[in-house]
Amino acid sequence: MSDYGKLTDALLDELRGIVGAERFESGDGVGEAYSHDEMPIYGKSAPDAVCRVESTEEVSRIMKLCYEHKIPVTVRGAGTGLVGGCVPVYGGVVISTEKMNHILEYDMKNLCVRIEPGVLLCDLAADALEHGLMYPPDPGEKTSTVGGNVSTNAGGMRAVKYGVTRDYVLAMTVVLPNGEAIELGRKVCKTSSGYSLLHLMIGSEGTLGVITELTLKLIPKPALESSFILPFGDIATAIASVPEIKLANLGPQSIEFMERDIVDASAAYTGTQIFPTKAGDQDIGAYILVTLVCDSEDELEGKMEKLAEVAENSGAYDVFVVSEGTQAKEVWAARSAFLTAIEASYKLLDEMDVVVPVDSIAAFLAYCRETAAANGLGLRAFGHAGDGNLHIYCCTNELELDEFLRRNEVVMAKCYAKCDELGGQVSGEHAIGRAKKQYLLESVGDTVYGLMRAIKQVFDPENILNPGKVCE
Amino acid sequence: MSDYGKLTDALLDELRGIVGAERFESGDGVGEAYSHDEMPIYGKSAPDAVCRVESTEEVSRIMKLCYEHKIPVTVRGAGTGLVGGCVPVYGGVVISTEKMNHILEYDMKNLCVRIEPGVLLCDLAADALEHGLMYPPDPGEKTSTVGGNVSTNAGGMRAVKYGVTRDYVLAMTVVLPNGEAIELGRKVCKTSSGYSLLHLMIGSEGTLGVITELTLKLIPKPALESSFILPFGDIATAIASVPEIKLANLGPQSIEFMERDIVDASAAYTGTQIFPTKAGDQDIGAYILVTLVCDSEDELEGKMEKLAEVAENSGAYDVFVVSEGTQAKEVWAARSAFLTAIEASYKLLDEMDVVVPVDSIAAFLAYCRETAAANGLGLRAFGHAGDGNLHIYCCTNELELDEFLRRNEVVMAKCYAKCDELGGQVSGEHAIGRAKKQYLLESVGDTVYGLMRAIKQVFDPENILNPGKVCE
Repeated sequence: MSDYGKLTDALLDELRGIVGAERFESGDGVGEAYSHDEMPIYGKSAPDAVCRVESTEEVSRIMKLCYEHKIPVTVRGAGTGLVGGCVPVYGGVVISTEKMNHILEYDMKNLCVRIEPGVLLCDLAADALEHGLMYPPDPGEKTSTVGGNVSTNAGGMRAVKYGVTRDYVLAMTVVLPNGEAIELGRKVCKTSSGYSLLHLMIGSEGTLGVITELTLKLIPKPALESSFILPFGDIATAIASVPEIKLANLGPQSIEFMERDIVDASAAYTGTQIFPTKAGDQDIGAYILVTLVCDSEDELEGKMEKLAEVAENSGAYDVFVVSEGTQAKEVWAARSAFLTAIEASYKLLDEMDVVVPVDSIAAFLAYCRETAAANGLGLRAFGHAGDGNLHIYCCTNELELDEFLRRNEVVMAKCYAKCDELGGQVSGEHAIGRAKKQYLLESVGDTVYGLMRAIKQVFDPENILNPGKVCE
Repeated sequence: MSDYGKLTDALLDELRGIVGAERFESGDGVGEAYSHDEMPIYGKSAPDAVCRVESTEEVSRIMKLCYEHKIPVTVRGAGTGLVGGCVPVYGGVVISTEKMNHILEYDMKNLCVRIEPGVLLCDLAADALEHGLMYPPDPGEKTSTVGGNVSTNAGGMRAVKYGVTRDYVLAMTVVLPNGEAIELGRKVCKTSSGYSLLHLMIGSEGTLGVITELTLKLIPKPALESSFILPFGDIATAIASVPEIKLANLGPQSIEFMERDIVDASAAYTGTQIFPTKAGDQDIGAYILVTLVCDSEDELEGKMEKLAEVAENSGAYDVFVVSEGTQAKEVWAARSAFLTAIEASYKLLDEMDVVVPVDSIAAFLAYCRETAAANGLGLRAFGHAGDGNLHIYCCTNELELDEFLRRNEVVMAKCYAKCDELGGQVSGEHAIGRAKKQYLLESVGDTVYGLMRAIKQVFDPENILNPGKVCE
């Protein structure tokens, strides 16, 4: 741990002077929310001051000041993270991007949009559609900021077809720890111009620089979108259908999976049974939810026929067409509400966001279930079948915190080791933050971890930017 | 410049011992080809020894030895580069991957392939098709190695729809300068697990580590592919059609442009007029070549109709359907032969591979033409209209080398500055190598260049790996 400077009254005054009293909080005046994200189980920690910035210049001035006085600085978007990434572990200053929420400019010739980092994902998505365009990344948490999405390389439901956040970042303005602002990337989709600092910054969780502006690639809005529920007897058969669906050249936008237990839990929580539980007289054990995008009704019809064929050959009991409009919204809302339903059903929980090769999903899930059960913990899982990204929750209603944490640690350690053995990675989209550092180290090994630490040192020699995260 | 060690007879013996005499060359026995790539104008330099490696282990042993004795090492694929990237500027050892040309394993469940880095692009492309799959990156130079493509983040014709090489690299084995082998990435498409060293390695031109194995994403082979030539009166009108084509939701695989002069030059060189020169009684001044991929004839028909509509609204004289089979092959072969035709028509040439925002292509081309003419140089250009990546050649048949270089430098400096001013980047796909370092520095500025240099230092503290390239 570094030997940080103190935020003296004089420094607090200077910070207040930079953003103005209305956008500044300090000491006891700091809102409670700034001390945690959506997983307070990983520990809360309050900052000494909060600056709700409005410009690159303000960020520059704050960083310069904090650099000179060795004050830790943590950037915060909407605080929707799940790994403690925005928690100011060593206190200091929180730079909140909540006021930098403006969509600055659409460029219809180059199909891109320039935004401030605090724009919410849902706002950008809706606004782009109004321009006849689509911003493809679609993480489950729609009220996250796009800056946060870039910092975690968030993935989401549509990654199967369109890729992840990384694939849509053309350029960014970044303020380095010493306060200097740099530009990375340009309004172009193809480049081979030196080491890609742009790609290094993406997914670096606010530890290398502060993103203050983003230029994002957009695509024309697809004409039609249609979802289908494929019901199966069990999860292994369901997952085995995924490569077949991909190979059928349907270009699916999403391939999600869910097991019966989570569908039931979700129905109990919401009071509405959105997903069917029977196909004819057969009990459904697992589901594959597929979304196809098409340019015309004819194209959709052709693809539906093919999907039906693949489903039948893969052992699906049926293909339920999710009609457009209300039903589609309900189904996807139910899918998006899984986490909320789990959170509401359990007193304590911890999560894994691993990614494994698609053909290892079923084996990995079985291992996790077995391991959780052997340690007296409940387990809930759902996720992105198309890309092997699983959201797995260890939960309890019976145990006290200490005992839960003790058992949870045993289960997590075993499951992460299994993930590694199966060729997976620690996080598909939630990132490392404060919570998953040890698992990252174990997964990538000392040399790679050491390279990451050395890169951190290059950008942030005083270790003032989001300290205690990712690799240090 | 570093103070490198000498390759003594004892060290040469050790190197020979690692790969065996048949795969080793040294001193006068080193083949001439190892001293240059396809742009010898940037300077030749022979290595002291060449090791044609066959395994990660051999690379590891060579690197360990060279690291201990501070011997420069340059990795070479097929030597098809255009920026002097594989030229061993400081002598030392060339590691040639030409024997590491095996496709190791297809994984049909996870839709990927594992290969050695010396596999030629054309071989991988053809082999994948035989498996019903497609490797989307499609640089013009088909006899490049895939390892070289990854090292330069090569783009190619299909980037508009499918993205560039970067988007298809899931994992790699890398030997670090000290000889240690590491694994980056996994057989998964989504990850947020620490800084992306994988993406840092992609496009790093063999300066940070030696790639010895690659796992690449594949996609199902599209059912149908069809190309269309849109003839226009002039280049500005032609380029203005590009955003319209994109917005029409046709998902074009390629959008190339060419001007009349290069079509004529190519026809003169090959003796065959592949591209039409008149549409009705109107002289064609510029062309847009579009390829659409579809799943069915019906889909294709619908897209053709839309394309025709867009073409008409954009001022195209006509839409020429390039019939499948022979004609399509001829058209694309003519497109791929542009560089060869230019090389054959001029005694001396230099090239730019800039990328500019799509809506700046016409303005940039006009500027380059004017600047070349004002300095008494010829200019030829073609490129990827869909992504703003331009291949521009300054050429002469009259001038002697010295005078050509002098004038060329003036033209290049002005054009790169203009590119920067228009929001472009130095290289779209050919990379920086030895030739474009100064332009990179001018484009990204001291701070970003300094960060690149510091990253180089992290990976290669002795500066033995491909020294004199990219940022040092």
